[in-house]
Amino acid sequence: MADSPNCDLKSLSPLQLFEKVTEQGEKVRALKAGKAPKDEIDAAVRMLLSLKLSYKTTTGQDYQAGLPPKDQALINNGTTKEEDEDLVDPWNVQTSNAKGVDYDKLIVRFGSTKIDTDLINRIERATGQKPHRFLRRGIFFSHRDMDQILHAYENKKPFYLYTGRGPSSQAMHVGHLIPFLFTKWLQEAFDVPLVIQLTDDEKYLWKDMTTEKAYEYAKENARDIIACGFDVNKTFIFSDLDYLGSSTGFYKNIIKVQKHVTFNQVKGIFGFTDSDCIGKISFPAIQAAPSFSSSFPQIFNGKENIQCLIPCAIDQDPYFRMTRDVAPRIGYPKPALLHSVFFPALQGAQTKMSASDVNSSVFLNDTPKQIKTKINKHAFSGGRDTIEEHRKYGGNCDVDVSFMYLTFFLEDDDKLEQLKQAYTSGELLTGELKKVLIETLQPLIAAHQERRKQITDEVVKQFMTPRKLAFEF
Amino acid sequence: MADSPNCDLKSLSPLQLFEKVTEQGEKVRALKAGKAPKDEIDAAVRMLLSLKLSYKTTTGQDYQAGLPPKDQALINNGTTKEEDEDLVDPWNVQTSNAKGVDYDKLIVRFGSTKIDTDLINRIERATGQKPHRFLRRGIFFSHRDMDQILHAYENKKPFYLYTGRGPSSQAMHVGHLIPFLFTKWLQEAFDVPLVIQLTDDEKYLWKDMTTEKAYEYAKENARDIIACGFDVNKTFIFSDLDYLGSSTGFYKNIIKVQKHVTFNQVKGIFGFTDSDCIGKISFPAIQAAPSFSSSFPQIFNGKENIQCLIPCAIDQDPYFRMTRDVAPRIGYPKPALLHSVFFPALQGAQTKMSASDVNSSVFLNDTPKQIKTKINKHAFSGGRDTIEEHRKYGGNCDVDVSFMYLTFFLEDDDKLEQLKQAYTSGELLTGELKKVLIETLQPLIAAHQERRKQITDEVVKQFMTPRKLAFEF
Repeated sequence: MADSPNCDLKSLSPLQLFEKVTEQGEKVRALKAGKAPKDEIDAAVRMLLSLKLSYKTTTGQDYQAGLPPKDQALINNGTTKEEDEDLVDPWNVQTSNAKGVDYDKLIVRFGSTKIDTDLINRIERATGQKPHRFLRRGIFFSHRDMDQILHAYENKKPFYLYTGRGPSSQAMHVGHLIPFLFTKWLQEAFDVPLVIQLTDDEKYLWKDMTTEKAYEYAKENARDIIACGFDVNKTFIFSDLDYLGSSTGFYKNIIKVQKHVTFNQVKGIFGFTDSDCIGKISFPAIQAAPSFSSSFPQIFNGKENIQCLIPCAIDQDPYFRMTRDVAPRIGYPKPALLHSVFFPALQGAQTKMSASDVNSSVFLNDTPKQIKTKINKHAFSGGRDTIEEHRKYGGNCDVDVSFMYLTFFLEDDDKLEQLKQAYTSGELLTGELKKVLIETLQPLIAAHQERRKQITDEVVKQFMTPRKLAFEF
Repeated sequence: MADSPNCDLKSLSPLQLFEKVTEQGEKVRALKAGKAPKDEIDAAVRMLLSLKLSYKTTTGQDYQAGLPPKDQALINNGTTKEEDEDLVDPWNVQTSNAKGVDYDKLIVRFGSTKIDTDLINRIERATGQKPHRFLRRGIFFSHRDMDQILHAYENKKPFYLYTGRGPSSQAMHVGHLIPFLFTKWLQEAFDVPLVIQLTDDEKYLWKDMTTEKAYEYAKENARDIIACGFDVNKTFIFSDLDYLGSSTGFYKNIIKVQKHVTFNQVKGIFGFTDSDCIGKISFPAIQAAPSFSSSFPQIFNGKENIQCLIPCAIDQDPYFRMTRDVAPRIGYPKPALLHSVFFPALQGAQTKMSASDVNSSVFLNDTPKQIKTKINKHAFSGGRDTIEEHRKYGGNCDVDVSFMYLTFFLEDDDKLEQLKQAYTSGELLTGELKKVLIETLQPLIAAHQERRKQITDEVVKQFMTPRKLAFEF
């Protein structure tokens, strides 16, 4: 540290300041313990006080040992945190609003950028493709540096896609398809390579599960992902438990990230505590590393500077805020991001669909009858209490889960608009709307199951083998 | 947690109790925040108070949030810590005593067992070999479960050896040879496989060093290790940066350890702080994992229950105390240990030799002239100030570094005893004793350099390639 603590303290983040204070405190204690000369101790104490003052000026709070400032994104940008603020992190999504999370607020809190019409038009121009319904309908609603990806693409510079899944159970539900359906569209529209991470190690760490079981789920989930129609020549799917032990580049990037992130930082970003196991504490680096092309030397021919674009649900953003913070410090480009909204539970948009609650989800292995029963029984309705009232006042599409699901899965824009008008006007009853959803999902899931059945163990193995893809770098 | 906190609290370690209190505190806060029913909150508070009482009874201290109890081994077994207690951890060895660290005290503090004559005789009987001078002279002085290894060996059950090195620089010094010379003897005496870990990832994390440089040092150090005469058919040397990316078993064991060790634990054992990077915090698991045979499926044919014996300097014991604590919880046998004293710096036994201070060490690439100059100039003498006084009162072998080095490197017991008597009686002068050391080390190092020169890149590669060894499991 320089002699004057004021040299460039203004450019430091609250967390960096916090660490400087902590460090200086430790120095003072060491000097006192070592019975250092009085003037040396006095100078160190003066610097400590000065650092504490800077900390207070920056954060508006007194420094408290062991209590780092909360992640910037979790602080409501200067205003006080509201009691009913939405809770969004990689493990929880909770809101008191039946319409779901307030995504405009989330963009402000996370410091990302809204995907606006201009950006969608630019994607259309660059790819020559009609934008995917997830873009047209604001399901992918926020981004980081997508303009940079497009600029590079327009100038014939390559990029690659990275998305992933935590394989917490054998069966995936329809909500899990969202990032994969969109990623498939992106891959085809831009013709770029794709890597898909299955974080079986994460599931082993967080759940009561053996590594064998987690790996088995990873392979089962890979089958569902492949059934989305990915091209084996352009796609690499990997389990962490497997790939970490078979790649020369992946571990090197993991440890580079781990060197540049402190416990204070992961505590601030992910809310880890001292009682958490060291596996959880260091895991964020494992989700970060695939953002760097040198984690895949077999694909990128050892090139370290191929930029990465990550389509994911916005609850995964904390991992990638951390990644983007570290990237320039280890000499890599920051990954760009495209964020989706959450897929609501059948019971309503207050929380996302969860594979661990069988009734909150329509699963990819549900029978047509199960699909019908679940939707009829559990899908939260925005309709009125009686047919008479419904005819008179109309239904509310903003909170109706069947309508929300149709915005995800019904391709035809005109039909969706007709349904909205008919339901809002009261012309269409809840049962009728549910019937449209059932008739949309049943064939979609049946087709998925049919494709899944065709996938042999050999094909899964092919996708999961580290290898060259059909691109030159 | 069970309803009554007293059920089996007595069997808990201070740290486990600390974590129970912390957990319960978090539960109380969550209940209050969630406006739970009053009787539920009251019950939780009562249990919290009861847990705090147990904590105080066990540790003699009040519970303080965020301040876990120190590692048991660092608490002077019930007595208060002495001001001048030796400091021994994987990064520091410091004592105020010119004779060096008090190893008898260390055995009590660490809770290990002294290697006594009975054990040495048993090793001799089991192997049919004269015990190595490091055993005869108490240089390997402490152990954990060596009797168990011998019992298994006597009953024809196999074990394997594991030792290692942190490759912090290109050149190794003579002190670094101690574990390797002894391990080579063990390997030959017992005819067992050996794995040698080069923690280049640790050096990357702790030092200002690139991964490339750390890996380069690992390969250079491997050359010096191979020059000790290890048999390529029975020995696997690996760099973490390399092997982690080429083994299916290693990462799985690392993450198993990482799941079963909390930040509180590594804080207590290694003194990590919140400002440390997450790489350091999770690193102990990487040094732990080679203690389990399933980290080397290529050697042990996938067998998970082959016991491991680790010869190492005693400063590495904290890693393996942690490992032994975790082992039964993940279904593996605890590794056994043989601990050596530290190799003293030329300047005296208050600290160990360090590769980063060029004058504290005799390096394996020093010329005969450098060896002579260093010893004559820097080796701390236990002789008297004048020849007259020396002849009259004699020298002190207990603090004389040249004599200490001879106990490490002079094979002939009789000659060593003669030197001791002659020096103590004043018959032998300091310069003469130094001459004996110089004449012992010069040919030893010259022969090492000669063997090292013969080692081709191909041979290094062979040792470092994961492969089957010449044993059947």
